[in-house]
Amino acid sequence: MITKKLQSQLEFIAEIDKLKTIIRRTKLISENRLENDAEHSWHLAIMAVTLEEYADEPVEISRVIKMLLIHDLVEIDAGDTFIYDEDMNLSKQERERQAAKRIFGLLPKDQENLFWNLWEEFEEEKTPEARFATALDRLQPIIHNYHNQGGTWKEFNITREQVEKKISKISKGSKKLWEVTEKILTESQEKGYL
Amino acid sequence: MITKKLQSQLEFIAEIDKLKTIIRRTKLISENRLENDAEHSWHLAIMAVTLEEYADEPVEISRVIKMLLIHDLVEIDAGDTFIYDEDMNLSKQERERQAAKRIFGLLPKDQENLFWNLWEEFEEEKTPEARFATALDRLQPIIHNYHNQGGTWKEFNITREQVEKKISKISKGSKKLWEVTEKILTESQEKGYL
Repeated sequence: MITKKLQSQLEFIAEIDKLKTIIRRTKLISENRLENDAEHSWHLAIMAVTLEEYADEPVEISRVIKMLLIHDLVEIDAGDTFIYDEDMNLSKQERERQAAKRIFGLLPKDQENLFWNLWEEFEEEKTPEARFATALDRLQPIIHNYHNQGGTWKEFNITREQVEKKISKISKGSKKLWEVTEKILTESQEKGYL
Repeated sequence: MITKKLQSQLEFIAEIDKLKTIIRRTKLISENRLENDAEHSWHLAIMAVTLEEYADEPVEISRVIKMLLIHDLVEIDAGDTFIYDEDMNLSKQERERQAAKRIFGLLPKDQENLFWNLWEEFEEEKTPEARFATALDRLQPIIHNYHNQGGTWKEFNITREQVEKKISKISKGSKKLWEVTEKILTESQEKGYL
């Protein structure tokens, strides 16, 4: 017998397919099209496995991975808020809380709580896991834009100061990855990408 | 200073972006286009978190998740082999081993071994983790095809017998998810999807 619980889990699994249609502002490295949230989340999860040793504090890596896998699910309802769009960022929090309520609410209560807590932990950036996950989330588009000769930075005339303001959180999760970031930004300036 | 080790990890991270361009035979549920391997891997990883309780044997879920995140990386070189293409499935193993060598070989030795072992464990289907991961890998396109009124099954005139032969491995990882599968297939036949 398929229980109601299992039925609701299957509905959740079908629902989150929509994350594959939420388009970000960053282009792929390997193809000339914008990335979607599902691809982005997958990439971040493998980055976590690969770069774990550079977290400033010891992290429970499986929690970092789960956080990254689900951190953008709220964008199914709330949409991707461009990091340099100051107006939209004002209403972001409330829109995303409503989304979390609906989407995680499709799950059985214990899993709803698990996903909600992971998402909230990520948003609050107070634990080593959340700070490291946030660092990866900020670093990934930097890597993409660098490989794309400037990508979004060029398209929207973003300055190094604007980038640094938005991604300084990398330094809160990993000093080593912040060093990498600064190196990439300097090289990008030298090459005229930024 | 950015070490050679970190440099090689960053190269690996840029290289695997290509998984987002490897196209599968399954369509998204939420949009009329084919799914790519990165999206698929992300979806499976969340399915693992959501459906863990239905694994027949206790599993170390973080290993299941890591396996699912990396299981298709070999397709960057070897391409996606359609499950119903008997000829291509004969050469699949050797093509994928070469790919694993090159792609995991971009990483520092300890991580190359870690990724290789996870991939091999998945392929061999001998541990509870590998059997559960395989079950999810087989179940996901069933869910998609059902929501797409037949999807790939209709397009390629696949029969229920063909489907069952290919996905019977679901029953090796989870009797409960096999029950779900049989129910979906029966409903699909009733609705004329299969």
